[in-house]
Amino acid sequence: MANETIEWLGNRLRILDQTRLPQETSFIDLTDYRDLALAIKQMKVRGAPAIGIAAAYGIALGAQSIRTSDKEEFFVRLEQIIQAFAETRPTAVNLFWAISRMRQAATGRNVPQATKALLSEAKRIHQEEIAATRQLSLLGADLIKDGFRILTHCNAGSLATAGYGTALGIIKAAKGQGKNIIVFATETRPLLQGARLTVWELRQEDIPVTLITDSMAGYFMNRKEIDCVIVGADRIAANGDVANKIGTYTLAVLAKENCIPFYVAAPTSTIDVSLPSGTAIPIEERDSREVTHFQGFSIAMEDTKAANPAFDVTPHNYVSAIITERGIIRKEYQEETAGLGRS
Amino acid sequence: MANETIEWLGNRLRILDQTRLPQETSFIDLTDYRDLALAIKQMKVRGAPAIGIAAAYGIALGAQSIRTSDKEEFFVRLEQIIQAFAETRPTAVNLFWAISRMRQAATGRNVPQATKALLSEAKRIHQEEIAATRQLSLLGADLIKDGFRILTHCNAGSLATAGYGTALGIIKAAKGQGKNIIVFATETRPLLQGARLTVWELRQEDIPVTLITDSMAGYFMNRKEIDCVIVGADRIAANGDVANKIGTYTLAVLAKENCIPFYVAAPTSTIDVSLPSGTAIPIEERDSREVTHFQGFSIAMEDTKAANPAFDVTPHNYVSAIITERGIIRKEYQEETAGLGRS
Repeated sequence: MANETIEWLGNRLRILDQTRLPQETSFIDLTDYRDLALAIKQMKVRGAPAIGIAAAYGIALGAQSIRTSDKEEFFVRLEQIIQAFAETRPTAVNLFWAISRMRQAATGRNVPQATKALLSEAKRIHQEEIAATRQLSLLGADLIKDGFRILTHCNAGSLATAGYGTALGIIKAAKGQGKNIIVFATETRPLLQGARLTVWELRQEDIPVTLITDSMAGYFMNRKEIDCVIVGADRIAANGDVANKIGTYTLAVLAKENCIPFYVAAPTSTIDVSLPSGTAIPIEERDSREVTHFQGFSIAMEDTKAANPAFDVTPHNYVSAIITERGIIRKEYQEETAGLGRS
Repeated sequence: MANETIEWLGNRLRILDQTRLPQETSFIDLTDYRDLALAIKQMKVRGAPAIGIAAAYGIALGAQSIRTSDKEEFFVRLEQIIQAFAETRPTAVNLFWAISRMRQAATGRNVPQATKALLSEAKRIHQEEIAATRQLSLLGADLIKDGFRILTHCNAGSLATAGYGTALGIIKAAKGQGKNIIVFATETRPLLQGARLTVWELRQEDIPVTLITDSMAGYFMNRKEIDCVIVGADRIAANGDVANKIGTYTLAVLAKENCIPFYVAAPTSTIDVSLPSGTAIPIEERDSREVTHFQGFSIAMEDTKAANPAFDVTPHNYVSAIITERGIIRKEYQEETAGLGRS
């Protein structure tokens, strides 16, 4: 799995088209950075860590296509390429973190050196993120007891991270420790990442999974059929507020009300220490047709007005712990995130 | 609208097929009570009050088809017909309330008298429910202020009641008083009664409505964009616990967390004084294909396990008020429901 979601093939990037799963496992080879930027927008590659990695390769790919030896011209063109990725999706900070690293890697070099450095940096980001998700999964697995029934939302697995996964990584690691785990996966409307991707990933790992609609999570929590909730994150503010897939805040409130631990799993590349709280996190508003239509089929009257915020913010007081590769943060987020945020 | 959802046409029952909306407004004429029982199971007619009314007509229709003048045989056959309806859907108590009234109406009469009395009773139930929803809508409208942004779940309108509606009845009545109302309608997975039916009903009344996925309700509440929540009910226990469409409990928890009033609107036929609390309310588990498939199209891998509880129970402490045609009940539900429950 780890090598399949995003794979660098020397002169092109191969991505698994996540919009086609689970019906079809098809790959797309991208040689033009603009096609990759579009693929990110269209969520063919998705999940905060995966977006960061893909954008890094995309910038390296774009740099290779710049036909000039003039340093100034090269950096003007490079900045245009970077902008194309910066404009794909606003919420996941991993994208901007990767962009910042890529810009830094090229700075001060001549054209051939910069081109080479950009590719090296993209590969380094990729490897670091794989290692980070593996490490946080092992740390998080200690929180999971044998027999736990775990609720997760959206998809925070290999597909979302191009690595081991965050929320699903912990579940897989716990299973690897011989623990019996049962997963409840919310379908995650509107784009059904839970139904399409999480169920698919867990079944490949032979982890029992029950699919539920987003509206059923409270029912099972209230019946004491859920032992903990684990989700991924798209951006974590310095105070521990968490932006993640729309519906996450609701699960956190339900968990608190039912005295169920609510864990957030994310590599430190997801922590944005520049933001004091979650209120400043930009929330992507996607096309309302994702809500009014289903696989092209209209589910409401023509011209129905629909809202489509793709993320919400869960205030830190609902979060029992944030699980990163550098350790598990419990409360007092402000101090701890400051030490953990990678820049 | 009031006459369209369910209409008695002398020798047959005409129902609006709610599974075809909003794409198609088509009616079904039923002359065989078994077809009507199936239509209730398949949710062609749905909503707690509407199910009660439809079943009452169905029993009257079934009685007309009994070809005997032998009283004993008639009542044996009548009981079989009643059973067919009792087995359609377990949660909405209006069904059992209507059955009980129908049984009582026939008791002690000879065959022609009983047949006649059954039809009269069905018509009486129908008229009473229309009057009840109209009355509770007027009472509830007083709770709504000009400019209110109201969240509702599933469909508790004319379609669900064969009358004026409960939650939507209140919204319509408030609009009738000249108040500006904005509605947020949850799509209500898996069967999308919100997206398909509530949006359709509100747009016919020119009431502005924004469709959201079930997972977005918390987002809008937390942003202070919702002034109150109003839902219908399928069964209300003596202590005020409310069974309603799956997802209702979640909305109630979110409303409490965000200090937003959470109102339940239902005719007193929905109150089941025989149950001390909501824990004893039977929850219908429907076909898991309603979750794994969408209009026949599979959204998850083949053989994915899915849960499909159609209702949940909201404990009374989350309910700000229950709005009935006989008055608005606030807390101390036990005493008040005892006085209000119709038998």
